[in-house]
Amino acid sequence: MFIRLLADHPWFEVTAVAASERSAGKRYRDAAHWLSGDLPARVGDLVVTLCEPSAVDTPVVFSALDSDVAGEVEGAFARAGRLVLSNARNHRMDADVPLLIPEVNPDHLGLLAIQRATRGWAGAIVTNSNCSTMVIALALAPLQQAFGIEQLFVTTLQALSGAGYPGVPSLDILGNVIPFIGGGEEEKIEVEPLKILGTFENGAVTPASMRVSAQVNRVAVEHGHTACMSIQLATHATPDAAMDALRSWKGAIAGMGLPSAPANPVLVTMKRDRPQPRRDVNAGNGMSVVVGRVRTDPILDLRLVAMGHNTIRGAAGASVLNAELMFARGLIQG
Amino acid sequence: MFIRLLADHPWFEVTAVAASERSAGKRYRDAAHWLSGDLPARVGDLVVTLCEPSAVDTPVVFSALDSDVAGEVEGAFARAGRLVLSNARNHRMDADVPLLIPEVNPDHLGLLAIQRATRGWAGAIVTNSNCSTMVIALALAPLQQAFGIEQLFVTTLQALSGAGYPGVPSLDILGNVIPFIGGGEEEKIEVEPLKILGTFENGAVTPASMRVSAQVNRVAVEHGHTACMSIQLATHATPDAAMDALRSWKGAIAGMGLPSAPANPVLVTMKRDRPQPRRDVNAGNGMSVVVGRVRTDPILDLRLVAMGHNTIRGAAGASVLNAELMFARGLIQG
Amino acid sequence: MFIRLLADHPWFEVTAVAASERSAGKRYRDAAHWLSGDLPARVGDLVVTLCEPSAVDTPVVFSALDSDVAGEVEGAFARAGRLVLSNARNHRMDADVPLLIPEVNPDHLGLLAIQRATRGWAGAIVTNSNCSTMVIALALAPLQQAFGIEQLFVTTLQALSGAGYPGVPSLDILGNVIPFIGGGEEEKIEVEPLKILGTFENGAVTPASMRVSAQVNRVAVEHGHTACMSIQLATHATPDAAMDALRSWKGAIAGMGLPSAPANPVLVTMKRDRPQPRRDVNAGNGMSVVVGRVRTDPILDLRLVAMGHNTIRGAAGASVLNAELMFARGLIQG
Amino acid sequence: MFIRLLADHPWFEVTAVAASERSAGKRYRDAAHWLSGDLPARVGDLVVTLCEPSAVDTPVVFSALDSDVAGEVEGAFARAGRLVLSNARNHRMDADVPLLIPEVNPDHLGLLAIQRATRGWAGAIVTNSNCSTMVIALALAPLQQAFGIEQLFVTTLQALSGAGYPGVPSLDILGNVIPFIGGGEEEKIEVEPLKILGTFENGAVTPASMRVSAQVNRVAVEHGHTACMSIQLATHATPDAAMDALRSWKGAIAGMGLPSAPANPVLVTMKRDRPQPRRDVNAGNGMSVVVGRVRTDPILDLRLVAMGHNTIRGAAGASVLNAELMFARGLIQG
Repeated sequence: MFIRLLADHPWFEVTAVAASERSAGKRYRDAAHWLSGDLPARVGDLVVTLCEPSAVDTPVVFSALDSDVAGEVEGAFARAGRLVLSNARNHRMDADVPLLIPEVNPDHLGLLAIQRATRGWAGAIVTNSNCSTMVIALALAPLQQAFGIEQLFVTTLQALSGAGYPGVPSLDILGNVIPFIGGGEEEKIEVEPLKILGTFENGAVTPASMRVSAQVNRVAVEHGHTACMSIQLATHATPDAAMDALRSWKGAIAGMGLPSAPANPVLVTMKRDRPQPRRDVNAGNGMSVVVGRVRTDPILDLRLVAMGHNTIRGAAGASVLNAELMFARGLIQG
Repeated sequence: MFIRLLADHPWFEVTAVAASERSAGKRYRDAAHWLSGDLPARVGDLVVTLCEPSAVDTPVVFSALDSDVAGEVEGAFARAGRLVLSNARNHRMDADVPLLIPEVNPDHLGLLAIQRATRGWAGAIVTNSNCSTMVIALALAPLQQAFGIEQLFVTTLQALSGAGYPGVPSLDILGNVIPFIGGGEEEKIEVEPLKILGTFENGAVTPASMRVSAQVNRVAVEHGHTACMSIQLATHATPDAAMDALRSWKGAIAGMGLPSAPANPVLVTMKRDRPQPRRDVNAGNGMSVVVGRVRTDPILDLRLVAMGHNTIRGAAGASVLNAELMFARGLIQG
Repeated sequence: MFIRLLADHPWFEVTAVAASERSAGKRYRDAAHWLSGDLPARVGDLVVTLCEPSAVDTPVVFSALDSDVAGEVEGAFARAGRLVLSNARNHRMDADVPLLIPEVNPDHLGLLAIQRATRGWAGAIVTNSNCSTMVIALALAPLQQAFGIEQLFVTTLQALSGAGYPGVPSLDILGNVIPFIGGGEEEKIEVEPLKILGTFENGAVTPASMRVSAQVNRVAVEHGHTACMSIQLATHATPDAAMDALRSWKGAIAGMGLPSAPANPVLVTMKRDRPQPRRDVNAGNGMSVVVGRVRTDPILDLRLVAMGHNTIRGAAGASVLNAELMFARGLIQG
Repeated sequence: MFIRLLADHPWFEVTAVAASERSAGKRYRDAAHWLSGDLPARVGDLVVTLCEPSAVDTPVVFSALDSDVAGEVEGAFARAGRLVLSNARNHRMDADVPLLIPEVNPDHLGLLAIQRATRGWAGAIVTNSNCSTMVIALALAPLQQAFGIEQLFVTTLQALSGAGYPGVPSLDILGNVIPFIGGGEEEKIEVEPLKILGTFENGAVTPASMRVSAQVNRVAVEHGHTACMSIQLATHATPDAAMDALRSWKGAIAGMGLPSAPANPVLVTMKRDRPQPRRDVNAGNGMSVVVGRVRTDPILDLRLVAMGHNTIRGAAGASVLNAELMFARGLIQG
């Protein structure tokens, strides 16, 4: 997905692809044979190199590494002076690493100075959130800014592509639901939004004070994570007021002209049976979160359903947008 | 499903099948051509009659009618002296109609005397709950009895068979999730459990005092509704204590020998990725609810996942078990 | 699908949408509420009219009518001087009606003079083939032209969208295969390709002399019909020679600049497990047929698998391409 | 599946489970954690041993080994005096190894004397066919015996369980068809039926003289392989005559009382849209093949659709039935 999003990027050019020893030395098109659609010839021809700073001489590194290796490898690249935009969970909750959503918390990039000072790195690591967290945090941000959020109960129905490839065996999920996702999925959803929605002051992020309870499910959907949310606000709001807040919210990067930024980070649908992953997942080229069924909760203030593209907005597209923000701000040199 | 469950029943015999004018006059096997498996020859040969007391002379009537006609038709049968076991929603919340789960509230049958006195009917109506309510109420009952329940947030992932046939078009649900179910599904789940878990005193049912917030989804599963639940108890309990309560609970009809009663109305699984509809839906011949992932909730007391067969335990099997209880108690004459 | 393909068409403009009494009078966006994606506002706002010449004053009419009404309605429009581009089966096999694939048999438009003379119509009817026929005929055409075809055994695996909406109930097809499609699907596949590949001489089409045996299946795929074919050629050819013929074939409209014409009507894939509907269905914007697994047949000459988009190339896109050809030839006045 | 079929078998007892080093030493229930349903406690408790004769002291060995190890391991067991009932492809086409279907070719067990004499083994190997071959061969056998078969064109739609576990990634097959199955699937279907339907004379099997062309597809079905067949008979027969032959055929073991033998190895359905895997796969406890849509072929004599359970009739159940036949004939000592 990184490759697809970067292949025709107006600001960035893919000059190297790195992986483990198993793939190194192959042409990228052969190493990633399961990709549907056509790769741009230039990228497909790249020979995969080993994933270490000496083998990859690019100033910016996008990391889709597994968490069992990402911690160390990303650190090595940052130490070697590279800017690492990471989709891995390893450094997300590090106190000096931004967990960045450009529309929500661009000021968290202030952590980079701390990170470099503390670690003595020439480069740096900037992370994006877990894919479900992204959908949830984007739906929450306008409400947090308008009313404050105190409690969230969220149940997710997550797409297969969230598990990578080969990922979930078909015999496990055909006509089925799996009420569990490994790797601490629920914990991430309960912790990451607090950092994202937290405030950056005096060189540190103070997490938002909300409490989150998450339950996750895997469902037989290709792309698109759905989140059913019950929300307690700090200041009560009606569904109409909430929808106004969601609809009118443009986020902190509106007007900057970032190539991957959607016109509306959050879209509100009034159709009673939407959002649906198969029908709405490509809203905003996969970069918008679609919110629907905003209604009163019988116990808390609001209920709603949010859905977003887990491998675009929730992963590769998020990293690319992070890089675009940093480039626009002069934090990446051309 | 009624036909399948009753075909070889040791206590009941199917002697008539009734439907609307569209089907009346056909052999049952032709009217219900989409049924998989083989019908018992005797039942398949029955000629479908019109659905009115004069055309059907059985003392017990199982009703799987649509709610747009069930209210009137069931009343006509009850007035004509028949015992109606109804799966329709129309009369469930009537103050003098039992919303019965034999394991949970058999004393609610005390409402029948009130119902007959009030309405002047020779017969009576006994209802079973909405299919999702059934899964939820059975999972809650042991916890309610042991600890009391104050709040429930529940998100369901519901099977296709819950929508009947032809039901959900394949183009709507293949590789998709629909975060909406019509007919007031969420409202039923928020109201029915309170009556089921309520107390019968002085000729009336006082609803349980819990509050419920429900969000429902349709998923591409054949049979088996999954409910992800966050629960606030009146008396705090650990997950272990909750699992003990669930595991040891046998319900009010244990030992009565009702043919459709499962050995365990509630089963607890310790596997971290269960219950799953395709793999667990037939537990207890489809009459047991399987509960898993019992764990601490970060906001309330407990989280858990419950799953049960929506067309057996949640519909036809529930009505049959209700009839068995009434027969065993002498409320139906052989 | 017609609406989507025509909404931004460079040559045609949608000025009216017509349907039966059930939908007439509604805004199109409400009458077609199940459509995914967003309709262009202008088209969504159109008020649906009754489907009769007096209510619709466009010179060109695209018909996606059901076959139970298409025969009469299309005739009425043609009589009233309109050019009807029909996706319905009713007139396809009429001796004086072109069953048109622009790349394959544009000369069959010569039938229009006969049609008008015979029927005394000011307008005319031009048809496109059944959706499976289209995939099969496009894969056969290059082989027919290069080697001649004598026999075809074909088994199809057809997508859900071929059955329209609501179409196939999800309970029938989830985790299932249905080895049957109503409406004479197999017969159409056995007859239509002969007319399409036939020769137009002396004012009539002489069907190709090949024999076809077809078996059809419905599978749980959204879009894309797959056809597994065993072929007896008139002149033997190796798989390599066949692939050369398929690859180099551009069809009769190459270079005409028809907006919907794909660069390659037939694409050949060398991947051993392709074509696949979900991954290849949008080749050539849904207008190319993808052929793979070209290999020797143990009994006949060749085996291959062909796959194409059943609602674009196989239906609406076919009609639009037919209209483009006629417009380019001056048979439609702007 | 072997374990499930053998757990309560009246004649056989599972006393050992063997696997590779990766699983050896674990309890079987832990090594096979993905199994749905409950294992019998006794079998679940068995400690998995290494797969070599010295570690397993049973007289009969059921082999579900992968073909990359089956050849050698099965030979080692046979050399050590064990009777090996193999589901692997390695020895199926060996001239001295029976490719056995009890209903079809029980006389092929005469090869065992040759096998022992040739190889000097105390034990022996008996194989069952590829899972698709089984469905096809059982549907063909009655027709072969009644009319003779000259040509077969067959296209299969094969279930996921045929690929084992984890098998096909869900991202490959959700809403998709894969027109390819590895391991020489098409070749097996083109060769194995000839041996199965061949004649045993003078110590050798002469293959049937029919020719077979096979094309295979993977579809999103859990269990049940579907085969669409076009058949040229030696003696022409009408569809009615063919159905009579299929319906009246009981096979060579009728009346022997083999526990796994279905009453009817072949069932004929008259419903126009059957057989369907999800609805018919358990016919005869998964041991019957269901044949439907028997009709005239426009080129050859007959067309029909056959469907059977690929992991019961097509694999484990086939081996068990083979063992039952051998036990009943005294070829296995109690």
